[in-house]
Amino acid sequence: MIDLLLLGNTGMQPLPDRWLSSLLVRSGGALTLFDCGEGTQIPLKRFGWGFRQIGAICLTHVHADHVAGLPGLLHGMANADRTEPVAIYGPAGTARVVAGLRTIAPDLPYEVTVSDLRGGESFPLPGGLTGSALSGLHRIPVVAYRIHVGRGRGFLRDRAEALGVPQPLWGRLQRGEAARWPGGDATPEQVLGPPRRGLSVGLVTDTRPLPTMPPFLSGVDLLVCEATYGDPADAEKAVAYRHMTFAEAATLARDAGAAALWLTHFSPKLTDPSLWLPQATTVFAATTLGYSGLTTSLVFEP
Amino acid sequence: MIDLLLLGNTGMQPLPDRWLSSLLVRSGGALTLFDCGEGTQIPLKRFGWGFRQIGAICLTHVHADHVAGLPGLLHGMANADRTEPVAIYGPAGTARVVAGLRTIAPDLPYEVTVSDLRGGESFPLPGGLTGSALSGLHRIPVVAYRIHVGRGRGFLRDRAEALGVPQPLWGRLQRGEAARWPGGDATPEQVLGPPRRGLSVGLVTDTRPLPTMPPFLSGVDLLVCEATYGDPADAEKAVAYRHMTFAEAATLARDAGAAALWLTHFSPKLTDPSLWLPQATTVFAATTLGYSGLTTSLVFEP
Repeated sequence: MIDLLLLGNTGMQPLPDRWLSSLLVRSGGALTLFDCGEGTQIPLKRFGWGFRQIGAICLTHVHADHVAGLPGLLHGMANADRTEPVAIYGPAGTARVVAGLRTIAPDLPYEVTVSDLRGGESFPLPGGLTGSALSGLHRIPVVAYRIHVGRGRGFLRDRAEALGVPQPLWGRLQRGEAARWPGGDATPEQVLGPPRRGLSVGLVTDTRPLPTMPPFLSGVDLLVCEATYGDPADAEKAVAYRHMTFAEAATLARDAGAAALWLTHFSPKLTDPSLWLPQATTVFAATTLGYSGLTTSLVFEP
Repeated sequence: MIDLLLLGNTGMQPLPDRWLSSLLVRSGGALTLFDCGEGTQIPLKRFGWGFRQIGAICLTHVHADHVAGLPGLLHGMANADRTEPVAIYGPAGTARVVAGLRTIAPDLPYEVTVSDLRGGESFPLPGGLTGSALSGLHRIPVVAYRIHVGRGRGFLRDRAEALGVPQPLWGRLQRGEAARWPGGDATPEQVLGPPRRGLSVGLVTDTRPLPTMPPFLSGVDLLVCEATYGDPADAEKAVAYRHMTFAEAATLARDAGAAALWLTHFSPKLTDPSLWLPQATTVFAATTLGYSGLTTSLVFEP
C-alpha cells in the first residue's frame, strides 16, 4: 500500500491560504517527501503524518518554491528526535544548494546525504519503494520521479497442502527459497502464483512534457503533475516558462496510460482552478484538482 | 511618524495558525523588516504594506526561525519590481548565511549588501530612520536594535515675523541655515524653538536581558521584546536557552523607561499567551500581547 498526501497545490510563492506544491508518500510506515517549498512544514504538521519518519526528500529542482522550506523541515525532523540518516535526491546542483541552505541548519542529530541525479538512475526509498529519475526540461536542471513498490507472487496454499509441505516451511517458500522436510521437498515455483502488479506513482513538475515521459510513467496508478496554467490562451507562457497547461498534463496522463491524475502547482493567479478543469477532463477523465490535504491510498489489486 | 506591523508572534517554528515573529516598520513610505523566518512573506502579502518598498532587512541572528524566509522574500521583492539596493544587517556570520541562502535566490534585479554588526554601530535605515545595534546574549551571536527618527526644532513664526524675515527665507532658517535679505539678517537660533523628542522603537529578541539594555533602549516609545516563556516555572529554561520570560521582558521595559511594550516570540507550546499576561502587567502595565496583524502608529508629540 502507498498512501499519498498532497501538502499544497501552488507554484511560485506561498499564498495566505494556499501552500506550495509538495507531496508526501507513506509506505511501510516510512515517509518520502517530494519537494519542500517555503512553509511546507506547516501543512506537514497540520496533517500529522509525522516528521521523524521522513527518510528521504526528493527535490525536482532547486527553485526556491520547491526547496526553501528544507532548513525548517530538517530542524523539525531534529525536534521530532530523528536520528536515522536522511537521503536527499535532486538534479545537478542539489548538493551545492543543500550545503548553502544548511548554513542555517548546520547541526542535526542525523546524517544527511545528498545525491545529484542526472536522470536515468534508480535508488531505494524508505518503506521498500524504488525511485527512478528522468530528466525534464525547465529553466534549470529538473528531474521527474517515478516510485514503485513491487508485490510478491501469491502463495498457492492448496498446492502447498497437496504437496504436504509442513506449515512452518511455507514462509521459506514464500520468500523464494526451496524447502525440504523428512519425506519430501518443494520449490517456490511449485507453490507460487504468477507475477503480480506492484504500485507506481509519477511526480512531474516544473518541466515541459517530453516524449520520454509517457514510457517513463507507463501505467502508473497515479500521476501527480504540474498544471501551472488553466487557460489555453496561456499555452505560449507554458512554453516560454517551461511549465504545462491543464490540457498538457492530461495528455501526458493519457499517453502514459495512468490510472488517475492529480493536478497541482497552479499559478498563484489561478484563483479558481475548477474553472479550467474541463480542459483536463475532456482529455483524461480521471483528473482531480489538487488541494492541501488531498489524500489517497493505493492498494494492490485483489 | 513610524508605523509598525507585527507579522507574527511565534518562536522556533511556524504553526498552522501562527506566523514566526517578525516586525515591519514604515517611515516616509519606506519599509524596514526585522527578522524573516519561514513563511514571513505570507502575512507580508496578506497585510499589503508592500514588498517593493523594503529597503533594509535587519536580522537579530541567523537561527532558521529568524532568517529562513529570506530567499522567498528576496524573490517576492524582485517580483514586485524592486530595483533599488537592499541593505541587510545582522550580527557576525550574517554575510556567510545570506550567501548560503542566496544559492536559491542568485539572480535579483537589485543589489544586496550585507553588513555584519558587532554591536555599537549606528547606520541609516530607509525613510530617514537611524538604526543602532547592541550585542545580546544568545546561543549564537545576536544583536538588539533601536531605531530612531529625529524631529526638527519648531519654527517660531511669531519671532520670524517680528524680525521681518521675508517668508521665502523661512525654509532656509528651518533647515538650520542663516538668512540675509535687503535690510536685515537672522540666524536659526533666533527663530527655532528648543530641541524636540523624536521617536524610537526597540526590538529585542532571542537574548537574555543584559544590564546594557536599559540604557540602550532608554525612553523608547515602544519596545518589541521576546517573551518566550509565560510560566514563571520556566525561568530556568529561559536562562538555559537564553530567552526571556514575560516578567523579564516587562522588567526590561520598565527599567528602560519604555512607553509601551509588545510581547512576541512566544514558545509554540504557549497556546494561550493571555494566561500569563499578568506576569508582565504587574511589572509594566502598558503591555500588549503580540499577534499577527498588530499595528500602531507612533506620532510626534504635539
